[in-house]
Amino acid sequence: MLDNIRIIMINTFHPGNIGAAARALKNMGLSQLWLVDPREFPHEEADSRAAGAKDLLDSAVVVNSVEEAIADCQLVIGTSARQRSFDQPLLDAEQAAGLMVDEARGGTVGILFGRETMGLTNEEMMLCHRHLFIDANEDYPVLNIAQAIQLVCYELRRASKNTSALPEPAPYPRQQEMVLFFEHLEKVLRRTGFIIPQHEGRVMDKLRRYFNRTRPEKAELGMLRGILTSVEEVLAREVDNNKS
Amino acid sequence: MLDNIRIIMINTFHPGNIGAAARALKNMGLSQLWLVDPREFPHEEADSRAAGAKDLLDSAVVVNSVEEAIADCQLVIGTSARQRSFDQPLLDAEQAAGLMVDEARGGTVGILFGRETMGLTNEEMMLCHRHLFIDANEDYPVLNIAQAIQLVCYELRRASKNTSALPEPAPYPRQQEMVLFFEHLEKVLRRTGFIIPQHEGRVMDKLRRYFNRTRPEKAELGMLRGILTSVEEVLAREVDNNKS
Repeated sequence: MLDNIRIIMINTFHPGNIGAAARALKNMGLSQLWLVDPREFPHEEADSRAAGAKDLLDSAVVVNSVEEAIADCQLVIGTSARQRSFDQPLLDAEQAAGLMVDEARGGTVGILFGRETMGLTNEEMMLCHRHLFIDANEDYPVLNIAQAIQLVCYELRRASKNTSALPEPAPYPRQQEMVLFFEHLEKVLRRTGFIIPQHEGRVMDKLRRYFNRTRPEKAELGMLRGILTSVEEVLAREVDNNKS
Repeated sequence: MLDNIRIIMINTFHPGNIGAAARALKNMGLSQLWLVDPREFPHEEADSRAAGAKDLLDSAVVVNSVEEAIADCQLVIGTSARQRSFDQPLLDAEQAAGLMVDEARGGTVGILFGRETMGLTNEEMMLCHRHLFIDANEDYPVLNIAQAIQLVCYELRRASKNTSALPEPAPYPRQQEMVLFFEHLEKVLRRTGFIIPQHEGRVMDKLRRYFNRTRPEKAELGMLRGILTSVEEVLAREVDNNKS
């Protein structure tokens, strides 16, 4: 179950933090470390700080974009050191861990950790279904990234020990399917005139936020795409009628 | 309340770990960092890893012995990466944090973290009232020391937010008073013949373990010392009688 949980580090600056994170994962029984465009990796400082978790460094998956890292995740959590506007519901580490462990029974889940200097970008936060906020001292709430990862892995381990007889997890679509849906949705909404080029505003952002918050299950997403297809058929008939 | 909790690092080898620990404390709202005979401190690596918690490094108390660090603590917790023989009751991080926060309302509490290579010695573990074991991967249970401190501080913060209307905490004696009691006890037991030089065994260790586990309150300790004094009076009378 913990093997279905992907810890994703984006643009990490200090290789030492990558090594410390690998150790943090292994100490808590996790194994899936993904690195999006790390500044320096592999690196002897990462090896040194990983100590007995060198194997996790060796098996870490290095990709160029966040989208690649989350394409087959059904749940994506974004970590934030602060509350931000335009947010998804905020969970603390314990709540987020419970959700992740529950869904890891049925699919892959990922959690994003950002840059040492600035965390995650707004765009990256909007890819997420839920945001995690580690309660900390208001005077100094910014944890070292490997420390934040340690706390999350600790809570994931705790949550995995607490799994009672839960009902079958709901089948959620993977991120890649949602990406295709959003593309399909945007295409149709431009054709229906709901999105007007000169007044686009943040319509798609708001719709993405809505769907990420409410999280259609696989079957529900199928229905939504069917709806879009039926609208496209109406649009096609309109075009045909205009021709004739 | 969190200001009554002392994080004590013994013989730390890497100054970077001291800096990371300072940051971990401040991120969670703690402030009392004590260093027993650190190998290198102050050090720029500590400053670097402390980031915005440099003030905690500046105010850290450096002492030469564990005894100095815990003399005015009423509760001392020892951290262990493994179960050991001759142990006090083992608590997990959440349980230990609850106990520490509760007693921090009435006095100073301390928690010992050992060397990167070997943790705490058996002697140091025996100074403790309770042992803390962070549940971890059996294949690799040894956390980096600053990471372990981060987890403990995280649980301390959580526990401090959960304090409901608790009854007045029991008044416990400080460690220094227990040290004097054990000296008094040993002196009397040698005089009564309970401890025989040729067969000392681990009598005092077992007695220390007993009293650390059962934790006499101040008033109870007063009674125990009164008992010892009354025994000394009997012994004194015996000496007088033998003279006459």
